[in-house]
Amino acid sequence: MPKYKVIIQKIIEQIEDKKMKQGDKLPSIENLMDIFNAGKNTILKALNVLEKQAYIYQVAGSGSFVRKSKRSGYINLTESIGLKDHLSAFNLETKMLDLQIIKPDQDIMDNLNVDKDDDIYYVKRLRSVNGKGYSIEESYYVKSVVLYLNQEIVEDSIFKYLLENLNIEPGFTDHFMTLETLNKTESDLLELEDGSPVMLLESIFFLKDGTPFNYSKVLYQQDAQFFVQGYSYLDM
Amino acid sequence: MPKYKVIIQKIIEQIEDKKMKQGDKLPSIENLMDIFNAGKNTILKALNVLEKQAYIYQVAGSGSFVRKSKRSGYINLTESIGLKDHLSAFNLETKMLDLQIIKPDQDIMDNLNVDKDDDIYYVKRLRSVNGKGYSIEESYYVKSVVLYLNQEIVEDSIFKYLLENLNIEPGFTDHFMTLETLNKTESDLLELEDGSPVMLLESIFFLKDGTPFNYSKVLYQQDAQFFVQGYSYLDM
Repeated sequence: MPKYKVIIQKIIEQIEDKKMKQGDKLPSIENLMDIFNAGKNTILKALNVLEKQAYIYQVAGSGSFVRKSKRSGYINLTESIGLKDHLSAFNLETKMLDLQIIKPDQDIMDNLNVDKDDDIYYVKRLRSVNGKGYSIEESYYVKSVVLYLNQEIVEDSIFKYLLENLNIEPGFTDHFMTLETLNKTESDLLELEDGSPVMLLESIFFLKDGTPFNYSKVLYQQDAQFFVQGYSYLDM
Repeated sequence: MPKYKVIIQKIIEQIEDKKMKQGDKLPSIENLMDIFNAGKNTILKALNVLEKQAYIYQVAGSGSFVRKSKRSGYINLTESIGLKDHLSAFNLETKMLDLQIIKPDQDIMDNLNVDKDDDIYYVKRLRSVNGKGYSIEESYYVKSVVLYLNQEIVEDSIFKYLLENLNIEPGFTDHFMTLETLNKTESDLLELEDGSPVMLLESIFFLKDGTPFNYSKVLYQQDAQFFVQGYSYLDM
């Protein structure tokens, strides 16, 4: 693991163990260089990642400070790390409902920038938390990027497989969130009443070079909770 | 207006007028310096803001590219610019339902880091879009930061007032989103059925130095749509 990631993990441990709490000032960059026996660029990189992950905030000319601890059990939409990591505190189970190679319809062509002849992996999954239906996911992967999928991968973590086996790292994601109601098929799957309200999260995942490779539509039952970090762009 | 903001506006115009579309490469930094008669730092600042605002993405060693045009009518949670700006294409009206100075309860104390004796501005507003109830907002402002509020300000844009009159610029925001159902009072206000599903958006707005100054709870009727930009932190 690269050094800056080790540093990130150690600082996160301090914050999660409440050894440092909201508003506490982190050691100076020079002190952090000493503590971790690391160069300035490594420390700066670690601090920037910690800021993006909302563990700290940096004040120009003043230092870095611990940010309020995140509420647990919330899905962080600002970070693209896969549901399994977001809900690591819970007993998340994944059941594959469908996996096939299809040709895209217009909606998929628009969102993934593909042609009608391109191959697309279609995946449908049911996620459960502590034995209770949590979400229904329909997801479309561009096969020329995501070369292979099978049931074992799909029932574990696709995100982890992409990272570790295909060396695919998402660069950024667009999320669109609306409120919907379940139809009969969906409510049966989630064991909820027909017409129950759910959150629909549509997401488009892009490679770092801007190529969209995954388009997903996930219906979350009403106990799901989402966290988003906002920024003011005014002075960036 | 600072030069980098002028450059941002001109590039956004090009993208919104579809003169540049998804995947199109922007001129190089050197060319942009010529086109806008600006220094390198100014160009870099403009590009960084455009990336944060999801208009472009930057690929290391390769350049900047136009990102897919955002869907209109979505509230962008990643940018903290106030509902009025997000919904500028619509006819948004704001009615003040309550404005008073109160002492905080435990929930407010926890979220705003204030004492039980601190003064808090409590604001309740009903927002309507094209004459139809859109959201009910209850918002708490730390009076020692937000020194003064009145009906005129509250029915226009509080965000604009903070920026232009009090010189307060939010640094970052934590958003928490859950699904709720309306009670009788709320459903009457929004002219919806009792028990209708709504999105609850809780937000804590922080100054750049990390001080929380506003805590708000907004119920959005079900046509509201939200946009979030996600990042992969893996390689930042």
